[in-house]
Amino acid sequence: MNSVSQLFGIKFPIIQGGMIWCTGANLVSAVSNAGGLGLLGAGSMYPDQLEEEIKNCLKLTDKPFGVNLPLLYPNIEEHLNLIEKYRVPIVFTSAGSPKKYTERLKASGIKVAHVVSSSAFALKSQEAGVDAVVAEGFEAGGHNGREETTTLCLIPSVAETVSIPVIAAGGISCGKSMLAAMSLGAQGVQMGSRFVMTHESAAHENFKNAILQAKEGDTKLTLHEITPVRLLNSTFYKAVLHAYDSGASIDELKELLGRGRAKKGMSLGDLEEGELEIGQVSARIKGVISAREVIEQTIGEFHEAQKRVGNISF
Amino acid sequence: MNSVSQLFGIKFPIIQGGMIWCTGANLVSAVSNAGGLGLLGAGSMYPDQLEEEIKNCLKLTDKPFGVNLPLLYPNIEEHLNLIEKYRVPIVFTSAGSPKKYTERLKASGIKVAHVVSSSAFALKSQEAGVDAVVAEGFEAGGHNGREETTTLCLIPSVAETVSIPVIAAGGISCGKSMLAAMSLGAQGVQMGSRFVMTHESAAHENFKNAILQAKEGDTKLTLHEITPVRLLNSTFYKAVLHAYDSGASIDELKELLGRGRAKKGMSLGDLEEGELEIGQVSARIKGVISAREVIEQTIGEFHEAQKRVGNISF
Repeated sequence: MNSVSQLFGIKFPIIQGGMIWCTGANLVSAVSNAGGLGLLGAGSMYPDQLEEEIKNCLKLTDKPFGVNLPLLYPNIEEHLNLIEKYRVPIVFTSAGSPKKYTERLKASGIKVAHVVSSSAFALKSQEAGVDAVVAEGFEAGGHNGREETTTLCLIPSVAETVSIPVIAAGGISCGKSMLAAMSLGAQGVQMGSRFVMTHESAAHENFKNAILQAKEGDTKLTLHEITPVRLLNSTFYKAVLHAYDSGASIDELKELLGRGRAKKGMSLGDLEEGELEIGQVSARIKGVISAREVIEQTIGEFHEAQKRVGNISF
Repeated sequence: MNSVSQLFGIKFPIIQGGMIWCTGANLVSAVSNAGGLGLLGAGSMYPDQLEEEIKNCLKLTDKPFGVNLPLLYPNIEEHLNLIEKYRVPIVFTSAGSPKKYTERLKASGIKVAHVVSSSAFALKSQEAGVDAVVAEGFEAGGHNGREETTTLCLIPSVAETVSIPVIAAGGISCGKSMLAAMSLGAQGVQMGSRFVMTHESAAHENFKNAILQAKEGDTKLTLHEITPVRLLNSTFYKAVLHAYDSGASIDELKELLGRGRAKKGMSLGDLEEGELEIGQVSARIKGVISAREVIEQTIGEFHEAQKRVGNISF
């Protein structure tokens, strides 16, 4: 039992990131049933879909689960109403100011964690009253901070800056990296890419197969001028590179990005036109397994590594 | 005693990176006398200066020390002759193929480590016969790999790929990050920026003061088209950004970079025209202390963190 497992009422301080297009009720309930914390990725859901997924989670697990809510989402008010209506116990907010909704959520008895990529925003989040922060490094998939601070540099600084629990994200896919994060001062970890690569994830098979082929260097943080995002090398990614080489303006980049590319790639499996958001750890993921296996392997490997570093003496 | 301390005959598996313009005999001998491994940064020395520094090291310490040798250096043959003449026991090579000189160095009884930024090059280094690899992540200062793999993602992959000892570099400045690196499978750590910020380092006071002011996000990996290098935000760095914004060609970037900027910035303290190479951890370094204090604090904090994570139970 540590501060993160206590806060959320879970067995292991392992959180499944609420990634868009991949994290519906099947994955979320499987993670929560295995002792972790599953999060629905509301960022790719219309309100009616979110309602359906929440209802399914309530059917499939009696353990705590949560919703990841990007604060820039247009239907945010309807999402908040649903979360309150169904008494979802936990909300992770991201991509916006933690000042905006934390008070309201907490007044409804909901535990709130906010995702940050710097110590300064970790402090602002604490001041806004959140219960925990997710500190996410440069190596993470999808949208990312502008400062490019890696998890190794970010976690100790955030942990020294705030007094609330710190959950490390970005570059974590196994028990060794979980122990590393906790060595740095995190009390829990959030894993995204590793849970994309489970049987229960809603990611398209083509996307999963592309991740299986990924090697070191095959993801890159790009589109800094719009919103920095880490993408897997793909036809669309090459088009982005080509646009940069041709000196494309921000408006031209925005036009190239267009709308709906993440759905196309991650949900519909279009590896040509789609946008594939995934972390650097994709190079370390060698197979698709169940969510329960991810958690059991992570905990097993954590204990092995804990024993190994416990024996180091100088 | 572990594989890295045994290999080099040192007390603690802490290596002081052989950074250009900062690492002369004063720093190197202080690190080695405190139980770590000091490395002369030959990349910024003419042969006569390297000879002088080696002779001073031999006067100032009876402990093992080494030389960091960038293999692209024009005077490489003279450097190698000096290393052999004075029986320097350890050489770290970087920026070139480990096939080129490893056999010669090992035939002279010298221990060889090679710096890599990917698992593929770690394997090539092992095949070339090196005794250890330094695996250096994206967050490291100075010249860096193109794949942008962070230390957290790189170390476990390299450690699973090779059977020789792995030394982690990039983002390591304290006992917590040392424990994190060892959790990931490294048997030792190399710290650069932290040792730049010691009394014994030859870095100019202006450079040290600029590092003291550095906040998160104040270093950036740039000049990817020439050789990727992590720089501290400065007047010169802003000129680089401006050149990119104006659509500068590679030749124009090369002309802007010119020659001698690293010396200007790091050795002569010209914060306007100089190039300041430093790692992301500069945001975590709060003071200039002695090399011995760096090592003692790191080991003390390592033991604290080791005890803390040893008590985690699920």
